[in-house]
Amino acid sequence: MTNSNTSPAQAVRLRARDGSLISPTAGLANGFVQVNLVILPEAQANGFLRFCQANPKPCPLIAVSEPGQRGCDILADDLDIARDVPSYCVYRDGQLSETLPDVSGLWRDDLVTFALGCSFSFEHALVQNGVAVRHIDEGRNVPMFKTSIPLQTAGGFAGRMVVSMRPFRAAQAIRAIQITTRYPQAHGAPVHLGDPALIGISDLAHPDYGDAVSVHTDEIPVFWACGVTPQQVLMDAGVPFAITHNPGYMLVTDIPESHVALL
Amino acid sequence: MTNSNTSPAQAVRLRARDGSLISPTAGLANGFVQVNLVILPEAQANGFLRFCQANPKPCPLIAVSEPGQRGCDILADDLDIARDVPSYCVYRDGQLSETLPDVSGLWRDDLVTFALGCSFSFEHALVQNGVAVRHIDEGRNVPMFKTSIPLQTAGGFAGRMVVSMRPFRAAQAIRAIQITTRYPQAHGAPVHLGDPALIGISDLAHPDYGDAVSVHTDEIPVFWACGVTPQQVLMDAGVPFAITHNPGYMLVTDIPESHVALL
Repeated sequence: MTNSNTSPAQAVRLRARDGSLISPTAGLANGFVQVNLVILPEAQANGFLRFCQANPKPCPLIAVSEPGQRGCDILADDLDIARDVPSYCVYRDGQLSETLPDVSGLWRDDLVTFALGCSFSFEHALVQNGVAVRHIDEGRNVPMFKTSIPLQTAGGFAGRMVVSMRPFRAAQAIRAIQITTRYPQAHGAPVHLGDPALIGISDLAHPDYGDAVSVHTDEIPVFWACGVTPQQVLMDAGVPFAITHNPGYMLVTDIPESHVALL
Repeated sequence: MTNSNTSPAQAVRLRARDGSLISPTAGLANGFVQVNLVILPEAQANGFLRFCQANPKPCPLIAVSEPGQRGCDILADDLDIARDVPSYCVYRDGQLSETLPDVSGLWRDDLVTFALGCSFSFEHALVQNGVAVRHIDEGRNVPMFKTSIPLQTAGGFAGRMVVSMRPFRAAQAIRAIQITTRYPQAHGAPVHLGDPALIGISDLAHPDYGDAVSVHTDEIPVFWACGVTPQQVLMDAGVPFAITHNPGYMLVTDIPESHVALL
């Protein structure tokens, strides 16, 4: 399905489309923005759009499709939203119903797709700037935690923020704040650092999602808004029908990471 | 000495020049950059310039005068370096020798003046952005501490960094890092946050310079490189002769604070 004119990002999408890519997308097509997907019927989509606008740190909107469209030029010329992600989650009445490699059979004319920025973009920037990221070094998924941080209620959606955690020594934490500030479309600057209890996290060794990582005594845990937040919010709202990417199995876009950096 | 064409900054300098201003300059001529002064014979000045270039966080150079010059157009058109600061410190053989309201009687043809940025600039930016600064709210001088952070040895000068400390809740600490990053000529982003012991500070309640301030249990101490560092370094080096401003009694320049902000 690929040839010499295929970009690395398009090659990933085509392998997802033909079913030959069944792994998470971390590390694939480096340099291109990967996004979280939320796909909702228009009846819920208009409210969800207001929710995203009101909560840009957990829900940084990169693109919103027209109802029923499986393409989205902002993300990629040749996109098929229903097939170009290696694994999808389908929710019914607020419960995870199934995971599927292709949702073209479930497609409806009223489905609206939201592409939300992902921390992969700023993690690449951290590493390129010499700031080591613990879960990458330890070969694990980033640790994620439910918090007490309230979200802005909007469009019929509400809840608490889910955050990801990365530990750093102080000087690297300061540098990480500077670097991630440049990426508002990838969750931007952290929302908290230091004492986890202040945001309702009781134990860093037991994340709600992902894997625990080492935190050394001279390190400060730093917390970023996480793209798992909207999935949690959709489940809490008991939406009748929703499709998302399966966490870790992202949509790889044709947008260069440099294009979403401020400065 | 002032008339309707006098800028607020020039008015402060003229009052210092004629001896009618004998107070610290905090809060005067708001919106104009205030600077630390270091005045050295050329025999030490060339080495000190290399030291500042190697240690830009504690010693952010805004201007360096030509030897013997009492003016400096970059700072102000009408400047008299020997008279326009309300109070000067004179050091001989590494010891504070006297404080004087006017050093024109000590002026020499080989004296070089260094103007170094001051945290007043970023403190105004913090307050304007809604980030309250504790020592301002408590009507005290900022607490300053000697640390174990080594300076880059250069030009015959060496030593450890002196830092200032401002406590913030985490979200405000993150905002303070973003705001002060815009002011590299006013010490820029912090050099440390969190555990003071990691940079050799044993007790936040007992600063080496300035006043102690309240630090609440939900706050993180955040540490910035401090303009007291070069004074400490000059004393440690036992320089035969140096003049500085008296801490708190700064030179008020004609440079608008907005002109030293990045972005």
